[in-house]
Amino acid sequence: MLKSDASKKSGQRLVGDVAYSEAIEVASHVTPVPGGVGPMTVAMLMRNTLIAARRQLERATASVWPLQTLRLNTLTPPPRITPTPLGEGKSTTLLGLVQALAAHRGRNAFACMRQPSQGPTFGVKGGAAGGGYSQVIPMEDFNLHLTGDIHAVTAANNLLAAQMDARIFHELTQKDGPLYDRLVPKIKGARKFSAVQLRRLKRLGINKTDPDALTPEERTKFARLNIDTTKIMWNRVVDLNDRYLRKITIGQSPTEKGFTRESSFDISVASEIMAVLALGKDVEDIKERLSSMVVALDKSGNPVTADDLGMTGALMVLLKDAFEPTLMQSLEGTPVLVHTGPFANIAHGCSSILADKIAMKLARADGYVATEAGFGSDIGMEKFFDIKCRASGDTPHCAVIVSTVRALKMHGGGPTVSPGLPLHDVYVQAYLKEMIMTKIKKVLKVFLNFTRNDTEAELNMVKEYAMKNGAFSAVICNHWAKGGAGALELADAVIAACDSSSTFEYLYPLNMSIQEKIKKIAEEMYGAGQIEYSNEVLEKIKVFSERGYDKLPICMAKTSNSLTGDPSVKGAPTGFTLRINDIFVSVGAGFVVPMVGEISKMPGLPTRPSIYDIDLNTQSGEIEGLF
Amino acid sequence: MLKSDASKKSGQRLVGDVAYSEAIEVASHVTPVPGGVGPMTVAMLMRNTLIAARRQLERATASVWPLQTLRLNTLTPPPRITPTPLGEGKSTTLLGLVQALAAHRGRNAFACMRQPSQGPTFGVKGGAAGGGYSQVIPMEDFNLHLTGDIHAVTAANNLLAAQMDARIFHELTQKDGPLYDRLVPKIKGARKFSAVQLRRLKRLGINKTDPDALTPEERTKFARLNIDTTKIMWNRVVDLNDRYLRKITIGQSPTEKGFTRESSFDISVASEIMAVLALGKDVEDIKERLSSMVVALDKSGNPVTADDLGMTGALMVLLKDAFEPTLMQSLEGTPVLVHTGPFANIAHGCSSILADKIAMKLARADGYVATEAGFGSDIGMEKFFDIKCRASGDTPHCAVIVSTVRALKMHGGGPTVSPGLPLHDVYVQAYLKEMIMTKIKKVLKVFLNFTRNDTEAELNMVKEYAMKNGAFSAVICNHWAKGGAGALELADAVIAACDSSSTFEYLYPLNMSIQEKIKKIAEEMYGAGQIEYSNEVLEKIKVFSERGYDKLPICMAKTSNSLTGDPSVKGAPTGFTLRINDIFVSVGAGFVVPMVGEISKMPGLPTRPSIYDIDLNTQSGEIEGLF
Repeated sequence: MLKSDASKKSGQRLVGDVAYSEAIEVASHVTPVPGGVGPMTVAMLMRNTLIAARRQLERATASVWPLQTLRLNTLTPPPRITPTPLGEGKSTTLLGLVQALAAHRGRNAFACMRQPSQGPTFGVKGGAAGGGYSQVIPMEDFNLHLTGDIHAVTAANNLLAAQMDARIFHELTQKDGPLYDRLVPKIKGARKFSAVQLRRLKRLGINKTDPDALTPEERTKFARLNIDTTKIMWNRVVDLNDRYLRKITIGQSPTEKGFTRESSFDISVASEIMAVLALGKDVEDIKERLSSMVVALDKSGNPVTADDLGMTGALMVLLKDAFEPTLMQSLEGTPVLVHTGPFANIAHGCSSILADKIAMKLARADGYVATEAGFGSDIGMEKFFDIKCRASGDTPHCAVIVSTVRALKMHGGGPTVSPGLPLHDVYVQAYLKEMIMTKIKKVLKVFLNFTRNDTEAELNMVKEYAMKNGAFSAVICNHWAKGGAGALELADAVIAACDSSSTFEYLYPLNMSIQEKIKKIAEEMYGAGQIEYSNEVLEKIKVFSERGYDKLPICMAKTSNSLTGDPSVKGAPTGFTLRINDIFVSVGAGFVVPMVGEISKMPGLPTRPSIYDIDLNTQSGEIEGLF
Repeated sequence: MLKSDASKKSGQRLVGDVAYSEAIEVASHVTPVPGGVGPMTVAMLMRNTLIAARRQLERATASVWPLQTLRLNTLTPPPRITPTPLGEGKSTTLLGLVQALAAHRGRNAFACMRQPSQGPTFGVKGGAAGGGYSQVIPMEDFNLHLTGDIHAVTAANNLLAAQMDARIFHELTQKDGPLYDRLVPKIKGARKFSAVQLRRLKRLGINKTDPDALTPEERTKFARLNIDTTKIMWNRVVDLNDRYLRKITIGQSPTEKGFTRESSFDISVASEIMAVLALGKDVEDIKERLSSMVVALDKSGNPVTADDLGMTGALMVLLKDAFEPTLMQSLEGTPVLVHTGPFANIAHGCSSILADKIAMKLARADGYVATEAGFGSDIGMEKFFDIKCRASGDTPHCAVIVSTVRALKMHGGGPTVSPGLPLHDVYVQAYLKEMIMTKIKKVLKVFLNFTRNDTEAELNMVKEYAMKNGAFSAVICNHWAKGGAGALELADAVIAACDSSSTFEYLYPLNMSIQEKIKKIAEEMYGAGQIEYSNEVLEKIKVFSERGYDKLPICMAKTSNSLTGDPSVKGAPTGFTLRINDIFVSVGAGFVVPMVGEISKMPGLPTRPSIYDIDLNTQSGEIEGLF
């Protein structure tokens, strides 16, 4: 207050060379005062702004967050707030862990999650918000459109498809001259290339910027993408389970003059754009990846990219609000970043790199960021390590593997699974695979088990087995029923694991051939004996390799219900044949996608989808039947 | 403060029978205090809450808003912030008018607008945010995903389509018994109908609630919708211009076992669900309309509804966040409600009834709500009166018709239009149509004109002509260049018009036949001589009439570029033939849609869409090239 007197004395000039009247105008943006403000008010406003900024900075740089957590008054048994009768898995544990770390152990701890697709939400009952007292809230918004990321990806993906097909049509129905003139029209007497057109010219080796200066050959080269309609690699998407869109014929209206073609819709979360959004390190990286996405090959076998279609800027604009994660909270008031939602069986299935990096920055040096990978160590963990860690440059200090006695029983190969039935040695074999992972990755592990109808004896048997086979720690958790308080042992084990030294190695080097990489994954992760390729797949691998795409990591599209390609095969079989039925490349996302067995990019709705249970109570505004 | 001492004296009990410890807990939700709070603090907190609530109430019930408007520092000429070189139309005038009313005339004034489809935004340059100094801001968000309404409608529309096709498939591939058992499964030994299934039973006249009590015949009746795949009335939608989806064949994957069918995608803003959202009076009304949407006829010719497919609750849940309008502001800081976005040429094209009703409530008795109708008096105004006003029960106090000298020149039938060319009498003929409207509707009108390259003489000529032909008022505006200050005369004319008495009549009574209603609109609004129907259309009209849909109002799907069905015919021709090429019914939205001429429900992208100009500046975060 005393200090501000000095500024009063300085008369017309307050700060540097900002005139008094200007200062009033600036101040009026902070607090508009009818009739104008005096110099004292201006000075105090400025001083208060400075004080507020300092406080903000102090809060922002404190090593431990001044977090006010929420108290849980747990009921036994918990009210029916589990997302699914079968869901005591990854998300629940992720949330139990961060609730324990942040609300009970006083650590800065973030959870990073994907938003689930609306396909499964309205298909077979099951959200992905965690369950019991380890949940992200509000779970209804989490399971519905909350972040908007999936809608933005859908719009971007489909605009690219529409632009590709429209361009194919316009090239088929226009002669070279008019096509060029329409692409570079004369507006008020002048014609010029847009930025994205100049980039295409550069790629074509045409170093001209005046549209009128191009030779007829150069004009044709520029204007004709010459897409080979048998080599289109870009599908449309919807965020639902719509089996009738798995294979379709488009362009059958007379307005398209007979230029029909076969195509498909995939589920939105399998879109390459979703993978790009989840794998980009920053906005520039995302833009670069979007521009390089290959949508088709031309008639000479050269790739046609999103940038060739002029789409990079439009994609960026449609995705603009999807670059930023959405902040939610756990039931105990600890922070959760929700972002993107790549599918786990046909895409790489990990939370976004951007969210992880933001969380790591906010959690500070001593904090913890728990980020979710897709299901199963065979596909979820392997893709996390070999695709996401490669893209981010970050490596984990610790990996938590979630397993339930029920899952072990199911995969163990013993008699039919039923609750209460004792667990035999044979059941535990499925663990073997995860042990193999431990050897390969040399990352510390916390094995976790989790009670429901399980007996003490069963749980202890699994625990002992895990410890004997190289686990860093194995703990039994009860966070579904107790929230963070039920995962304290897990939190302590994670803290200890992160404090220990660890090493990290990729499963395969990038310079292996596509087939070698697939072999490595199939043998070491799945236990496969041999791999079968159709001639069509081998031909595609040849084309990909010629174009240098063989240097990309592999993103296996495989069922999560079995280590093999057949969902009905349980346990940990060895020596089986893995069949690669198709193969794709996502140049922008940066991976090659072999399709194992009969895996579909578009789920379907069952006879009685969860649609039948879902309703909105128009009196209370509450959603019913969505779990 | 003194009063709170009394509560201190009362010891353990503060308010009614809330115990002291409970009061602390309640208070801790208002302002959590570490270590707990004393009774004095609790009392003061409660008192402050009361004071704050009173202030809130006073503000909320004051007859004039304490609105702080934003000052405009207009530049001449305005910086390039017009949405399109051709856009000085409806939205700009809507915003200029409310800016004048609220920021210059001190009236409570709301603008209600639709959010534009992303199809046109990325197709031919042009947003719908207004222009110049009469704009809604931020215009980038307005033109992109802002409200999420269109994405929610797309998701809801397509989930209904997916569920319909999946149901057709499951009925085709399952016998009666298993089909029924899957629809009403035994869960933990018990089976029961869901609420939506009970509604279907009721419609079928089966008054049973125990799934095991149904006779085999009743089970079959319940389980089989028997959709006639040649009578499907529900298409999928995307919010883009995707010409290749105008006609497609779906279900071609071997997993669908040969049950393919022809179908179409429409643009999302033409979805019946969008119309329902815009026409519903409240959430209950929307639910009722959604449940009654007819997706197909069964093999006996009976309608199959969204409710029969179990979809009502799922649709409501998907649309939950789309029931509420989004509050934005004009460049002068006056309130704008943005909600829904029904297409203007193929849907009814009006802002939502919900937003209008909320705005009317908030604007109070002396306030003004300006709500936008679709383009052209022939389709936009007619649908506003005959469809929207019927659904809402509200009638306008005044109608503003926007016209430019350029539009009059284009429609006038004189020599080729060019700027600076003088306006002849013949040009003004297009006005004639609007005069006819005036007679029909008996609503007060303010004719408006708007300068750009127009001469004073031209503008005055139009003004005189309008006044001579029955306009309530005719004013020249300049809000594009000056904001609300350029529309003061318009604001005053609107105030005067609203203060005058007015009458309102629909163009046709609902009990006319479908053909009589079409005739009335075609003759009186368009000036048509006769109407041609194909036999297929006549057959459909017969089916609609048998089902009672002939009692619905008519929503003509017609080009906005001509009074006829042919966009190239200008001016005000009479006696022409109007051809009805197809006809649909939207039972939930509540209208019959005749398709006039070659109107398409799915626009296409031109050779050079605005995609080429659009980019995101990754340094500044600003969108470029989106107008």
